[in-house]
Amino acid sequence: MLEVGSAPDEPCLRADAARNRARLLEAAARLIAEHGAAGVTMEAVAAAAGVGKGTVFRRFGDRTGLLTALLDHSAKKLQADFLGGPPPLGPGAPPVERLRAFGVAVLYRSAEQLDLHLAAQPEPTRRFSHPSYRALHTHVTVLLRQILPGADHELLARPLMAFLDPALVNHLTRQCGMPMERLEKGWLDLVARVTRTEV
Amino acid sequence: MLEVGSAPDEPCLRADAARNRARLLEAAARLIAEHGAAGVTMEAVAAAAGVGKGTVFRRFGDRTGLLTALLDHSAKKLQADFLGGPPPLGPGAPPVERLRAFGVAVLYRSAEQLDLHLAAQPEPTRRFSHPSYRALHTHVTVLLRQILPGADHELLARPLMAFLDPALVNHLTRQCGMPMERLEKGWLDLVARVTRTEV
Repeated sequence: MLEVGSAPDEPCLRADAARNRARLLEAAARLIAEHGAAGVTMEAVAAAAGVGKGTVFRRFGDRTGLLTALLDHSAKKLQADFLGGPPPLGPGAPPVERLRAFGVAVLYRSAEQLDLHLAAQPEPTRRFSHPSYRALHTHVTVLLRQILPGADHELLARPLMAFLDPALVNHLTRQCGMPMERLEKGWLDLVARVTRTEV
Repeated sequence: MLEVGSAPDEPCLRADAARNRARLLEAAARLIAEHGAAGVTMEAVAAAAGVGKGTVFRRFGDRTGLLTALLDHSAKKLQADFLGGPPPLGPGAPPVERLRAFGVAVLYRSAEQLDLHLAAQPEPTRRFSHPSYRALHTHVTVLLRQILPGADHELLARPLMAFLDPALVNHLTRQCGMPMERLEKGWLDLVARVTRTEV
């Protein structure tokens, strides 16, 4: 799933380097899932991936570089899944089913990487123009256009996106103690209401 | 509308001091509406209210104190309006009409004080536990409970609140160039869909 050679500074990343990078990102993701973003150090990632510390620094520069690469990796994977993966997330299923599956996928991805998402939240004036937000918002808008041809998709996509906001998922699960199952049910209910369909 | 003597450090604010405070806050609000939050200095507020600069400093300490007092003042005014003011915002109108009026009032209030709201946005982990957010969220939850007795009001209130987020209003109006009328229409459409009523 890694876009080998896609970054501007690595036009022809060699196969072993790409494998190394993938292994490091997977190790870091595993560490975050187990210990939260705060527990992720360059040393821990090197140890977990079975490579030298120098390799991690050479590859990502510093901890911020590693966390950014990790979010980017996960965003691209999700995007690949909803743009070209199997239905109901990918093409082939009716648009309202794709919208349901999209929200559930984003919710669980946010929950798995909460610390990472919170650490990376842009400031208020950039929250809605940030590329990672825009990519998801565009997808929701496109699906709504297919489901509700006459509606204001651009605006209707906003409250749907807001339900999937990692800061809200953090508040509901960690601060209010809600189980993810309730959020998932809440998403399906919201989709049904907004699209005037049944759950 | 000022809660005279409501702050813990001013148990018996004298009438002339209260009038002074109200005049200063009104002058500051006017300046923000005209020039944005960045244009508001202690000097400009003193001049606009026709008092000495020392009075402004004595009353609010510094610029941050003034901006905080201003947001607080506006939040309390809005709260008084939807809890005890005339219908359809206040009690007496059917709950769905109150919900419609509430969103429109919050939208226009946000638009009038965008800079102020943006400057005061709490960090992501406190966004949903902030007292000003909670007061509005509680009101929306209470109205939804009356409109949709069987629904998950706590969760359904979230996307409605998100539509009124000053950071989103800022993005849609200033960064995307949408007129407020479209946001107002979008709110009424969203309320209709979420409550399964007609616009």
